[in-house]
Amino acid sequence: LSALFDELFPIMRSITGPGLRASFEILGRFLPLTVETVASGEAVFDWIAPPEWHFRGARLVGPDGATVVDAADSTLHVLNYSEAVDRTLTLDELQPHLYSLEALPEAVPYVTSYYRRHWGFCLSHRQRQELRPGRYHAVIEAEFRPGGVPFATAQLEGEGPEELLLSSYLCHPSLANNELSGPLVLLGLYDRLSRWPRRRYGYRFLLNPETIGSLCYLHRHGQRQQQTLIGGLVLTCLGGPSPSLSYKLSRRGDGILDRVMLGLADGRLPGVGLPVDIRPFDPRGGSDERQYCSPGFNWPVGQVARTVYGAYDGYHNSLDDKAFMGIDRLVETIDALEQALRLVELACPYRNLSPFGEPQLGRRNLYPTINSADTWGRSNDAVSDHREFLNRILVVLNYSDGRLPMLDIAARHGFDLGALEPVIAVLEREGLLRISPETCRGPETRR
Amino acid sequence: LSALFDELFPIMRSITGPGLRASFEILGRFLPLTVETVASGEAVFDWIAPPEWHFRGARLVGPDGATVVDAADSTLHVLNYSEAVDRTLTLDELQPHLYSLEALPEAVPYVTSYYRRHWGFCLSHRQRQELRPGRYHAVIEAEFRPGGVPFATAQLEGEGPEELLLSSYLCHPSLANNELSGPLVLLGLYDRLSRWPRRRYGYRFLLNPETIGSLCYLHRHGQRQQQTLIGGLVLTCLGGPSPSLSYKLSRRGDGILDRVMLGLADGRLPGVGLPVDIRPFDPRGGSDERQYCSPGFNWPVGQVARTVYGAYDGYHNSLDDKAFMGIDRLVETIDALEQALRLVELACPYRNLSPFGEPQLGRRNLYPTINSADTWGRSNDAVSDHREFLNRILVVLNYSDGRLPMLDIAARHGFDLGALEPVIAVLEREGLLRISPETCRGPETRR
Amino acid sequence: LSALFDELFPIMRSITGPGLRASFEILGRFLPLTVETVASGEAVFDWIAPPEWHFRGARLVGPDGATVVDAADSTLHVLNYSEAVDRTLTLDELQPHLYSLEALPEAVPYVTSYYRRHWGFCLSHRQRQELRPGRYHAVIEAEFRPGGVPFATAQLEGEGPEELLLSSYLCHPSLANNELSGPLVLLGLYDRLSRWPRRRYGYRFLLNPETIGSLCYLHRHGQRQQQTLIGGLVLTCLGGPSPSLSYKLSRRGDGILDRVMLGLADGRLPGVGLPVDIRPFDPRGGSDERQYCSPGFNWPVGQVARTVYGAYDGYHNSLDDKAFMGIDRLVETIDALEQALRLVELACPYRNLSPFGEPQLGRRNLYPTINSADTWGRSNDAVSDHREFLNRILVVLNYSDGRLPMLDIAARHGFDLGALEPVIAVLEREGLLRISPETCRGPETRR
Repeated sequence: LSALFDELFPIMRSITGPGLRASFEILGRFLPLTVETVASGEAVFDWIAPPEWHFRGARLVGPDGATVVDAADSTLHVLNYSEAVDRTLTLDELQPHLYSLEALPEAVPYVTSYYRRHWGFCLSHRQRQELRPGRYHAVIEAEFRPGGVPFATAQLEGEGPEELLLSSYLCHPSLANNELSGPLVLLGLYDRLSRWPRRRYGYRFLLNPETIGSLCYLHRHGQRQQQTLIGGLVLTCLGGPSPSLSYKLSRRGDGILDRVMLGLADGRLPGVGLPVDIRPFDPRGGSDERQYCSPGFNWPVGQVARTVYGAYDGYHNSLDDKAFMGIDRLVETIDALEQALRLVELACPYRNLSPFGEPQLGRRNLYPTINSADTWGRSNDAVSDHREFLNRILVVLNYSDGRLPMLDIAARHGFDLGALEPVIAVLEREGLLRISPETCRGPETRR
Repeated sequence: LSALFDELFPIMRSITGPGLRASFEILGRFLPLTVETVASGEAVFDWIAPPEWHFRGARLVGPDGATVVDAADSTLHVLNYSEAVDRTLTLDELQPHLYSLEALPEAVPYVTSYYRRHWGFCLSHRQRQELRPGRYHAVIEAEFRPGGVPFATAQLEGEGPEELLLSSYLCHPSLANNELSGPLVLLGLYDRLSRWPRRRYGYRFLLNPETIGSLCYLHRHGQRQQQTLIGGLVLTCLGGPSPSLSYKLSRRGDGILDRVMLGLADGRLPGVGLPVDIRPFDPRGGSDERQYCSPGFNWPVGQVARTVYGAYDGYHNSLDDKAFMGIDRLVETIDALEQALRLVELACPYRNLSPFGEPQLGRRNLYPTINSADTWGRSNDAVSDHREFLNRILVVLNYSDGRLPMLDIAARHGFDLGALEPVIAVLEREGLLRISPETCRGPETRR
Repeated sequence: LSALFDELFPIMRSITGPGLRASFEILGRFLPLTVETVASGEAVFDWIAPPEWHFRGARLVGPDGATVVDAADSTLHVLNYSEAVDRTLTLDELQPHLYSLEALPEAVPYVTSYYRRHWGFCLSHRQRQELRPGRYHAVIEAEFRPGGVPFATAQLEGEGPEELLLSSYLCHPSLANNELSGPLVLLGLYDRLSRWPRRRYGYRFLLNPETIGSLCYLHRHGQRQQQTLIGGLVLTCLGGPSPSLSYKLSRRGDGILDRVMLGLADGRLPGVGLPVDIRPFDPRGGSDERQYCSPGFNWPVGQVARTVYGAYDGYHNSLDDKAFMGIDRLVETIDALEQALRLVELACPYRNLSPFGEPQLGRRNLYPTINSADTWGRSNDAVSDHREFLNRILVVLNYSDGRLPMLDIAARHGFDLGALEPVIAVLEREGLLRISPETCRGPETRR
């Protein structure tokens, strides 16, 4: 992951354009990405797909002929999606085009202007205060061309049609925690899940420029995805110093993934290596879950982070680097999310396929054929173990009506959800039980 | 109001007849009333519309030739809806036709007998105890004629088809708090609401003889009214010494008006000038809400009062006069109810008209076009105010699914409901939001 | 009951065969039983109806020629449903065919092996330990013949189509509390209910061999029964020292019978002579409610017991005799269940047949025709009694929407459910109210 990080970090990405496509190509070495593009000018719900930004270089030269900033040194130095400029200006004329952070005088901010034409340079506040009056030469070589908004998907098939969506964004240039952590964890999860011996659900992996890219995905695939979606995660800010996973509930808050995360947070479910904290859903901030959880979709898609946007100094500036993020922390995150997804596989409702009366467990060697309390000569421990397994079978069969999640069955009877896995597997093998996750989709998405 | 009160007070009203019609005519000077009549003898659900009572005079003369009581002095002296009589009787024969109040020896009670023919006189208990044995002459000049039960309606149109019903009764003769307070407050509300710059709902004003009149309205208009009704108020006993409004919940208790009143009572909503107390729904007593909330209709119509029937000595007797009621208190009541209705206008569910993803607020100048945390050179206060307005927009858009009342959205996020009015107005103007009160009608009334 | 107990106790019953049929015949003297049979070999959901067990005798003779045990002494001495055997064996060879209880050395256990061919003898552990090495002669005369699984039903018609199911099992041979108590209480309830002056519901009485017999009933009649069922009770273990009734909730827990039992347990309902305890539903143990509450049926059928299976030493062994059970306790149980069923008759929802507005109670002499507070000359007590009756009428009419159980109406307004019986009867007689128990069946059984 570390070398891949280093390869991706310096690329000048934006919501469209060559840097974004190059990044997809690099990631495509590790999972089989399909890239689709929504053409510039196409209506995407209430939006219009913007043109492509072709950036070549940006340089601000001072009155003394010395370079103030050059985008070749850091992609952050140019206002992202700047229009072209080649002008000489006084310092006063230049000021409205400069961006810095008074409170963090050493940091270069990350600034964008996608939907109104503008140009600008970003620099540290310390450097800005040293600028002397005089004439500055601002050069930005960039043009807007018809093209489109790309997004990339990969898929791991499951036993049934139901899918979980794992989504992250790829549009910020040289930022670490709040950019590359998401795609790298997504890539790690693809690797892990591809090795699972069985997957009850399919997994859809999505990488896109934030906001407009998820809107393009919804525009193209939303209706179809809705038929199979049972939950999802937006992956963002998955490194940093926070010792826990922070899960933001979906708007509905009742998806199977929401419920597993709530169970991990309140201790009803066994740990996954990292503590889990819960944030309520909030449309005021966040990432692409704001689109997935818009009222017309209302998908059960939450967001998972560790050191979350806005909660650290380096948010959207040059302090958000590889050291702050920590490659090791991404691996911890991948481990924890893999375990959480294993629980999600078990947590959904199942359907008892022989629901009229109890099935005859005796002829399947799952019920004692001799009815006798405390029969002499047998080990009481073995009887007790066998009885406990039978009890779990009886509980799972009785409550598996295709609606009540296995998560709730386990909680109600004090069973460890993970420990029900062999019970479920036996009953699946005997043809007595089948996963029934369609009911996880809830009334809204089932329309 | 005071002069109007004085004009209405002495009229001999009943559930039918000329006094009731005369009262409608007087009130019709202040709001455009349409009077309809259900003919005597017509079946009205389980009832039969009664004949008209034409009363001309009533006088009880004592053994000494002196007048004991004369209805010309007070309409209360005759049992309302008495049949005609012209008889000479002993005091013992007369006693079953006399009504007085032992516990309030100075008060003349208000007594009626609508559905069984009877005659009688009402007098103070003190006066009754002074009656001497001898022959009394009882004369009541009255007759029952075919005619009908009238009720009167007025309407203020709203932007949409949904309506609130404001209903009061007009059938008691010379009583103040428990009679004229209701129609006078209704008239005041008509005046106030007619001046509002916009009304999201229509308002239906109804005046009727109690019980049989509301049944006649339901019989004629119930099915149609049910299609558009989102709530309503029965107005009764709106004066008196009580310093608060007392709201009796509708049977359902979940109408938008119920919920606003509950919010006012528990402090979640800002005050309306008078404190609000809540009474549970109870079919055992009350006014026309007993008909609106019968199980076949189950309308979300509550009842509002101040010094409520049964809770004061003057209830249904001559102590319930103008001084007890207090014209000033009616004005306070009108002020408070007007403010409560303003909140009801905002409180219902709205529908986000661009529900698939977030709408592009940037091109509507509702979203910062430059993404930059704490941009140097701007006033942080202005940024913060703008951000707070944007936050409200995001919350309102995300949760406005046509089902969740704005009341709940405001409460959940700690917003003052009244303060959301400019946010709602901007989004309505931009075509992004529309009121969706049809869902307030609830499953029962939507059949 | 005592003589009937003595007649039934020694019969060799099993899940099929002549002993079971003989028992039905004896019980059929007391209630008109219809016996049906599902033929051996017929598929019953996931099961196959087993062949009939024709048992003639069983004897184990020791090395000294003395009889060790003989089924003629107690039906428990032979493993129930044993295959035939006539062998001479060493004690070591015999041991796997012997059953005893180490913890209860004097008790003879009750052991069965229905679904795997086996043979065996049951004896006290004390006797077993005295067995000397040598050659034993084991003789069991029994054969399996085609025939079928019988079950027996009786019916008491109600005013409407809705039914309560009262079910008990008859397959254990000489056991008292955990066998004969159920059929005897069922018989007592038939006798009591047949004498009721009116029954709002019908009552279906079912006797069957446990598990396979209830499955056969469900197989034959489940779909039809589901159309009319509003609740039911499995009767088991109804004697013993426990001073209370113990009610196991149905899986749904929301049936009208569940709710009455919950009301008796928490004191909201008046007592029925015995305290009531509640057990949660649990599919891991119990009787035929496991079949009725399987997810495909999910009937609102609970189970009632006193000294419950597993909670006493004599469970499934020879200590469970007439003295332990106690005939008097069965009578107490019958008394208590009869009273509980009377409450169930009142507890369900009713429908106001004149739901649009209040009906005109005055012309039915149910409303005071003269409106007067505290009218002089009447007894205030009489007014108050009449008013209280009227209040109950108003409450019952207003809330009887065909969905809200009368149980809840009574609880909400602090009325004693039993005391509402005359109010309900008057309104039924006046054509204003009708029982509406179909809504008790709940969404699942209404499919």
